[in-house]
Amino acid sequence: MSKGPRAKTFVFLDLEATGLPSMDPEIAELSLSAVHRSSLENPEHDESGTPLPPRVMDKLTLCMSPERPFTAKASEITGLSREGLARCGKAGFDGTVVRTLQAFLSRQEDPVCLVAHNGFDYDFPLLCMELQRLGAHLPQGTVCLDTLAALRGLDHAHSHGTRAQGGKSYSLGSLFRRYFQAEPSAAHSAEGDVHTLLMVFLHRAAELLSWADEQALSWAHVEPMYMPPDGSRLEA
Amino acid sequence: MSKGPRAKTFVFLDLEATGLPSMDPEIAELSLSAVHRSSLENPEHDESGTPLPPRVMDKLTLCMSPERPFTAKASEITGLSREGLARCGKAGFDGTVVRTLQAFLSRQEDPVCLVAHNGFDYDFPLLCMELQRLGAHLPQGTVCLDTLAALRGLDHAHSHGTRAQGGKSYSLGSLFRRYFQAEPSAAHSAEGDVHTLLMVFLHRAAELLSWADEQALSWAHVEPMYMPPDGSRLEA
Repeated sequence: MSKGPRAKTFVFLDLEATGLPSMDPEIAELSLSAVHRSSLENPEHDESGTPLPPRVMDKLTLCMSPERPFTAKASEITGLSREGLARCGKAGFDGTVVRTLQAFLSRQEDPVCLVAHNGFDYDFPLLCMELQRLGAHLPQGTVCLDTLAALRGLDHAHSHGTRAQGGKSYSLGSLFRRYFQAEPSAAHSAEGDVHTLLMVFLHRAAELLSWADEQALSWAHVEPMYMPPDGSRLEA
Repeated sequence: MSKGPRAKTFVFLDLEATGLPSMDPEIAELSLSAVHRSSLENPEHDESGTPLPPRVMDKLTLCMSPERPFTAKASEITGLSREGLARCGKAGFDGTVVRTLQAFLSRQEDPVCLVAHNGFDYDFPLLCMELQRLGAHLPQGTVCLDTLAALRGLDHAHSHGTRAQGGKSYSLGSLFRRYFQAEPSAAHSAEGDVHTLLMVFLHRAAELLSWADEQALSWAHVEPMYMPPDGSRLEA
């Protein structure tokens, strides 16, 4: 649990990968949107009351060629394939991804809080594995917030421990539909899911900022999803 | 005129800045979308025949605090201001921008062709100035294409030298409206304009790729918009 200084920048993150945790997936697409805390504390709204994405926002999306093939399901839902990525000349998750990511994060006022939906069980350990494989690090003081855990926790607290929230889905798409009565766009492109995540966050920004201040986890505590394979791609 | 190898990646570029060339503007927002040649040669279309943005696309958007204020007009149309950027903790166009840009470009199969609308008169000389101020360079072999010059040239060639195209506007918004019978979205955000530019390019991709192969200008021939001021921001 975070006892450090409050995060100044929230970096919304989504990864698309070759499959589920059980098959030791590799990242094929990474997207980040960096939003300053001040923009989340005072979001603008349109005339219908829907929050507007902040005007000042840094964004990064990178595609990369995994070494192993996608599962049929992962390829179907993401629209990505090893052949498509190779045709576009994409290298793997290598030192150039690390350098781009580190330079991008160095532009953000620190401390940085990474935000991902189901992040504790998927995005954070998967990113941790890819970085560890290359001996790379995120900026010291980086913390992370899982909106799935946070929103479940907040709703549970609101319901005073009754099981009133028990039947509701907390998938990113379900939350977006519940909050905005609309379909999320570009599901399972990393950038599309980051946009959906940002909108969900904005809908409950004040509560989630407080939650982050109390409960964000130090990135140093994130464990890799699996032990990275030795060898061939350590040329970072 | 390009006589080098054909570009493998087209990087669509837009800059938002503090004003027009006459007031020695500074960049406040930069957006790039990198698309592999293979995706432009074989674009997908939706059921109405409108081209779809490629699935595999790397994107980068960065905001930065200029040293001097925006003109009232520039602030109004971009939605950016010195105060808003400072509130979000944005540094200037410094070494971290250069490192992010260079690392991003190093992910793209080369040679790279930068594409901007009115690029020869605005985006390219302005980016050149900012890079020159920091002693920074783009990858060797980078070329650039101005879609304003290219589309005027193509239409002039099609009209066999008559002035049939003479009365038409070639602003990015006008081209988008003419090609798609719709309003461009998020005009004068850098990312929005890059999306509009990509759609305009896709509408005439085969012709523009041929034009680029024949006519793209070496980045080495781009001159800075003005002599960068000495001194205080050379800490790249």
